[in-house]
Amino acid sequence: MTTIDSPAVAAAFDALRAARPLVHNITNYVAMNVAANVLLALGASPAMVHAREEVEDFVVLSGALAINIGTLSPPWVEAMKLAAAKAVKSRIPWVLDPVGCGATPYRTRVSAELAAMKPAVIRGNAGEIMSLAGEAAGGVRGVDSLAASDAAVEAARALANTTGAVVAVTGETDYVTDGATIVAVTGGHALMPLSTALGCALTATVAAFAAVRPPFEATVAALAVYAAAGAEAASRCRGPGHLPAELCDALYAMNATLLARRAKIATV
Amino acid sequence: MTTIDSPAVAAAFDALRAARPLVHNITNYVAMNVAANVLLALGASPAMVHAREEVEDFVVLSGALAINIGTLSPPWVEAMKLAAAKAVKSRIPWVLDPVGCGATPYRTRVSAELAAMKPAVIRGNAGEIMSLAGEAAGGVRGVDSLAASDAAVEAARALANTTGAVVAVTGETDYVTDGATIVAVTGGHALMPLSTALGCALTATVAAFAAVRPPFEATVAALAVYAAAGAEAASRCRGPGHLPAELCDALYAMNATLLARRAKIATV
Amino acid sequence: MTTIDSPAVAAAFDALRAARPLVHNITNYVAMNVAANVLLALGASPAMVHAREEVEDFVVLSGALAINIGTLSPPWVEAMKLAAAKAVKSRIPWVLDPVGCGATPYRTRVSAELAAMKPAVIRGNAGEIMSLAGEAAGGVRGVDSLAASDAAVEAARALANTTGAVVAVTGETDYVTDGATIVAVTGGHALMPLSTALGCALTATVAAFAAVRPPFEATVAALAVYAAAGAEAASRCRGPGHLPAELCDALYAMNATLLARRAKIATV
Repeated sequence: MTTIDSPAVAAAFDALRAARPLVHNITNYVAMNVAANVLLALGASPAMVHAREEVEDFVVLSGALAINIGTLSPPWVEAMKLAAAKAVKSRIPWVLDPVGCGATPYRTRVSAELAAMKPAVIRGNAGEIMSLAGEAAGGVRGVDSLAASDAAVEAARALANTTGAVVAVTGETDYVTDGATIVAVTGGHALMPLSTALGCALTATVAAFAAVRPPFEATVAALAVYAAAGAEAASRCRGPGHLPAELCDALYAMNATLLARRAKIATV
Repeated sequence: MTTIDSPAVAAAFDALRAARPLVHNITNYVAMNVAANVLLALGASPAMVHAREEVEDFVVLSGALAINIGTLSPPWVEAMKLAAAKAVKSRIPWVLDPVGCGATPYRTRVSAELAAMKPAVIRGNAGEIMSLAGEAAGGVRGVDSLAASDAAVEAARALANTTGAVVAVTGETDYVTDGATIVAVTGGHALMPLSTALGCALTATVAAFAAVRPPFEATVAALAVYAAAGAEAASRCRGPGHLPAELCDALYAMNATLLARRAKIATV
Repeated sequence: MTTIDSPAVAAAFDALRAARPLVHNITNYVAMNVAANVLLALGASPAMVHAREEVEDFVVLSGALAINIGTLSPPWVEAMKLAAAKAVKSRIPWVLDPVGCGATPYRTRVSAELAAMKPAVIRGNAGEIMSLAGEAAGGVRGVDSLAASDAAVEAARALANTTGAVVAVTGETDYVTDGATIVAVTGGHALMPLSTALGCALTATVAAFAAVRPPFEATVAALAVYAAAGAEAASRCRGPGHLPAELCDALYAMNATLLARRAKIATV
């Protein structure tokens, strides 16, 4: 595996902007608007399509698929599975965000079923990743995590080995692993967890990069770009209110210099 | 009943921030993002969970439940009823927002069915509260109210006596009653009705306070904090566009001094 | 047909603000919040109501209906058809936004079925209008259009003649046709397509004007007001992040002078 550094991320971002990939999202109601705006600001083309009547037709037009179970219900889960299966069959990468895995048996079961369907990447907070990896679900409360991301690194590695997916556990420090290598990404800002759906929009960002780069590199690139933009955005905010708008402006204006200054990538 | 004044509200807010209650919301599509951000800015932990497969498992993890019928449909109403019944059984307070009650027979019927399920608090605008109290529905047009909140005070008192809930009717002046005492809260700004879902997010705020205080005190505290934050937020706006973001920043920065200056609480 | 110039648009806007029409929306999850805020900033009263149990009761209370298929599924399509049929029967104008028509067979079929139900206005981007008019769907990618609006003018004219609707194809230049006359509206800003749901909110704006003016005049007025507000809003932005908020502020503050300066209307 080649080293992924800040210039490599900047090159991946250039590739994303040049390709303007269509990203198919099956995501939650809270995050849809934010995720679409983040994808547009990045330079991708977002679409939110969830009817079982069309998800298979739509995903094959797309560069990547993001599935987020935040406001799941059975018709949506059915569509998620149809879309994921078709994506895998068509060699289109898909990314799983198991929101609130561990909070209820329904959520935990659906997360496990989707994780078994060959996602290219799984992204969650510490509690979700620990729960999905089969550890005690004590780290989840509602859809927030009480545990720090550091505590979930070994769970992430185990989950990567079980599923074959690249696993990202995000928090104050983000970790990415393919089951062997572990990369840490730092940046961002303490205000970010106080603005809803920024984690979900990060999952969509991972999908956008997965349309133009292999999963591990895509995930590191997405986390680094997002961490840099989050830090830049928060520096313009007095509170969490304007953070989504500032995040979009920061993604829109992101360049190699800002990226190198605002985010750090290190092999652990 | 003890007097609820501005220092008591500040103390309730301190308790909320210390407890960081998980607030389970079954709310409308328009309001979800705004309500989640308002709850985060307050210091609560929001979750939007609506599948009948998990609402009963989720509500028992929560400090309070907010139910808002804004974009109701039968599967959602079924989940609302399951969650409300489980909340009552588990002594978890729940808050009802009967959006558009009086506008259609379906909405009026569902509002009445939910109001009979022992909510701790019912919050609505004048037209909704008058309709739910059984008065002529002439005060409702769509989901806005044509009537001033003053006109609905007696309807609110009657509804409190019928349901056992604390009833809040909000508008230029907000009124809270348990069927005996009536408290008026003033503050806010004329721009607030021009930004969608701020009433729905207020209902979520009432729920957050109900996780840490008894219903009457919780409702007065929520209305006072919101009125103060709304006034502060609007003072930074030229129009309604940035009001949700400014409201979150104002809630995030709210303190006892601002609260005392920006909102007034009086027994009527 | 009388000429529609900037003073005529300003007069239509005055009529809208005086009437404060209730606008019934059956729209997509991504756009609901933005569309509601745009309608409020304009001076209309928005409602999002989609259950088949109440759409017919609700639409007859409304000044106009906007139907947008962005996140369609069969229960929603059923409600759209019930509402559209009731609107036509009750002589309430309704506006169709065939989001992503051409991207999947399901979307294309539903768009055609709705277009046959006598909408007063159809608004789409170039790819959607070309697809709906029966041309090759090569202009659609996801929900964005790869084609410029100019390329779709003849398709728009044909679609107007087939359906009896006024057809608007929007893009860098907007075109409106009743099948005979073609009017071009310019203004807006290149940032607008980088903020999600602004096209959907424009459709809601067309519906608001259709509550107070005949379809052709209403459509031109809506596009001109929106183009002027978009240009004004973008002049205050560094990127797309704050554009929806600034657009609402610009609509809220819009007047005849700004309208004349920021948007141009010309018969082609």
